Amino acid sequence: MSSEDRWLLPEGIEESLPDEAAWLEHYRRSLLDMFSTWGYELVITPLIEYLDSLLIGPSDDLDLQTFKLTDQLTGRMMGVRADMTSQVARIDAHMLKREAPTRFCYLGTVLHTRPSGRDLTRSPLQLGAELYGHAGVDSDVEVICLMLETLKLVGIENICLDLGHVGIYTSLMRQAGLNAEQQKSLQALLQQRALPEYEQFLSACSLEEEWQEILMALSDLSGNEGMLDSAKKVLQNTNSSVIENINYVEELSKRVMQRSPEIQIHFDFAALSGYRYQNGAVFAAYISGQGEQIARGGRYDAIGEVFGRSRPATGFSLDLKALAKISPHALQAIQGIFAPNDDDPQLHEKIMQLRAQGERVICELSGQSGDALSMQCNRILNKEKQQWIVKERK
Amino acid sequence: MSSEDRWLLPEGIEESLPDEAAWLEHYRRSLLDMFSTWGYELVITPLIEYLDSLLIGPSDDLDLQTFKLTDQLTGRMMGVRADMTSQVARIDAHMLKREAPTRFCYLGTVLHTRPSGRDLTRSPLQLGAELYGHAGVDSDVEVICLMLETLKLVGIENICLDLGHVGIYTSLMRQAGLNAEQQKSLQALLQQRALPEYEQFLSACSLEEEWQEILMALSDLSGNEGMLDSAKKVLQNTNSSVIENINYVEELSKRVMQRSPEIQIHFDFAALSGYRYQNGAVFAAYISGQGEQIARGGRYDAIGEVFGRSRPATGFSLDLKALAKISPHALQAIQGIFAPNDDDPQLHEKIMQLRAQGERVICELSGQSGDALSMQCNRILNKEKQQWIVKERK
Repeated sequence: MSSEDRWLLPEGIEESLPDEAAWLEHYRRSLLDMFSTWGYELVITPLIEYLDSLLIGPSDDLDLQTFKLTDQLTGRMMGVRADMTSQVARIDAHMLKREAPTRFCYLGTVLHTRPSGRDLTRSPLQLGAELYGHAGVDSDVEVICLMLETLKLVGIENICLDLGHVGIYTSLMRQAGLNAEQQKSLQALLQQRALPEYEQFLSACSLEEEWQEILMALSDLSGNEGMLDSAKKVLQNTNSSVIENINYVEELSKRVMQRSPEIQIHFDFAALSGYRYQNGAVFAAYISGQGEQIARGGRYDAIGEVFGRSRPATGFSLDLKALAKISPHALQAIQGIFAPNDDDPQLHEKIMQLRAQGERVICELSGQSGDALSMQCNRILNKEKQQWIVKERK
Repeated sequence: MSSEDRWLLPEGIEESLPDEAAWLEHYRRSLLDMFSTWGYELVITPLIEYLDSLLIGPSDDLDLQTFKLTDQLTGRMMGVRADMTSQVARIDAHMLKREAPTRFCYLGTVLHTRPSGRDLTRSPLQLGAELYGHAGVDSDVEVICLMLETLKLVGIENICLDLGHVGIYTSLMRQAGLNAEQQKSLQALLQQRALPEYEQFLSACSLEEEWQEILMALSDLSGNEGMLDSAKKVLQNTNSSVIENINYVEELSKRVMQRSPEIQIHFDFAALSGYRYQNGAVFAAYISGQGEQIARGGRYDAIGEVFGRSRPATGFSLDLKALAKISPHALQAIQGIFAPNDDDPQLHEKIMQLRAQGERVICELSGQSGDALSMQCNRILNKEKQQWIVKERK
């Protein structure tokens, strides 16, 4: 590799230069502070862990997306975190062991072996919040409202909220008598929205006609509130848990609408894309009219079971770097004060005073190239009548 | 692996639970804000890069400490950052290309294949500052003073500053006629402070007696200011650059003492431990009487050359998690307000008001276990005469 391209970054691996880094730092603080006022406590999860701890769900996708490393101390396989939910589940189940509901938030880079998301990144800056220890609509509503507040805080408007329930589809497949293999294939086709292949596969499963019709209808059951009644009609003869789950989602939507009447709600009982360990209500935020999710979450009860403690849980996550790209909020560039190269102790004192007041003061270095302008300073320190004074740059 | 130990973290890989995470977040902000007032701009470097970009120095140590990964998209070798200096050098040389001096800071986790440092960690939270584009005492003084301010800000006192110059030792070995292989072996022995082996190896090199004496004397040349004169005496007949480098370090110490008269300064011209790419003045901070470095840095001119642009550079770095362990500053726990489960719109409004004022308000979830006390709330919201009022918890 020649020196000319040693600066190349791998595809989907990004760095943040000063302007973007300042934006991310600013909103990191605003968002974590907001989460804190809602009772969500920050945790910092490890960058790497043993694979057994990271890959606790049924998702092959997470396994494929995880970079693998060998621990030279033990020879065991480790992975770079591709997601933080299993890590937070471990903290809830094993480290804190609280009885009462527990709220966590986190912010950090995760790595994926392959690019994904609207920016085709392999290193999203994952921001998330999770609520452990409560089953029911209250906690899902809280987490959805916190997700919507997060988007609002960075200035994103015209939000469309997708609501669904992973349990509806999985329960129907079981009731229809499909085996595990068939269920997996059908789910994969639905996730890819490959509907002709889905229909073809379903026909080949030789189900009773009624179940075939129900599963076909479901792939198409999406829309606004009016759709809920037709869904209940189509599914009226199925196991009662299915109707209960539809009612749960309906209740969820009503409660969210009370708090955020300005958002659009869309229902989709066959949307499974991107949900790795969720097993209850699921939700995702879009910008109206645009294709890619900007945040998503859902309920993943019992995720802590492998760590010795099963608790209900719900949460959401998003990529803060993706939000930085679509947020209409820009930060003002900092304009500093340029201090001349002079070892006068009074100057040093003045500089330290200004810095303590939050001013950026840049000291001239002897013989340096560049003046106040090229150092992004709109003011200079100047000595007048034995006093160091801040003046506008000429 | 049984479910009982799936929660085990690999040796030297840590997580931060809420108390420690809050401390780290608090001082992250104070420190980055302080760096900003000195003109240091935050950059966020990638977690992984191609190995060619990460391993640009002569250090085998950095190579051994770097976790390796294969990029599935290209088949090329990547590494997890074990240090951020080469990444910042790439940003200075290739991305920003400013002519004037440029100041950067960074804060993020790096990974090492083997434990090191006072806490035997493999995942330090590296905080650092770097100044590109200026050669000379001014920039070294600025960086050292910023390092001392950093330690002061987290409450660490009794700081001892070690000063040295990598150029002195490497120049003497060259003048003595040692070949590259011999130089490397001797440096390694000095780094380990294996002095008997060092002496033995030196004797076997069959040098002129004068050089043998000089190199033996050097391994022992450390002490306070008084040592500088004896060093100059021992080295008076060597290449003039050696005396110039000693004078440079002397000047550095005087300038730092002017700013921070309270610290102890110690000189060591054979201390090479932990310096990976430095080639000029080097410095390290200790707590007086304790063995392990808590911060270190130095000058690494021309580091950007492999990225197509050679500039002088100086900087320092430290592990913020290690400082968290020794800092005397603790944060007060946040005491929240517990809000009852009630869908009164007035309550919701009151909650949002309190949160906007920075209060932590935790909403009761229907049927939850745990009361205000177990939710770390010292106050509750109570309805009196149609008004929601914050009251002390009984």
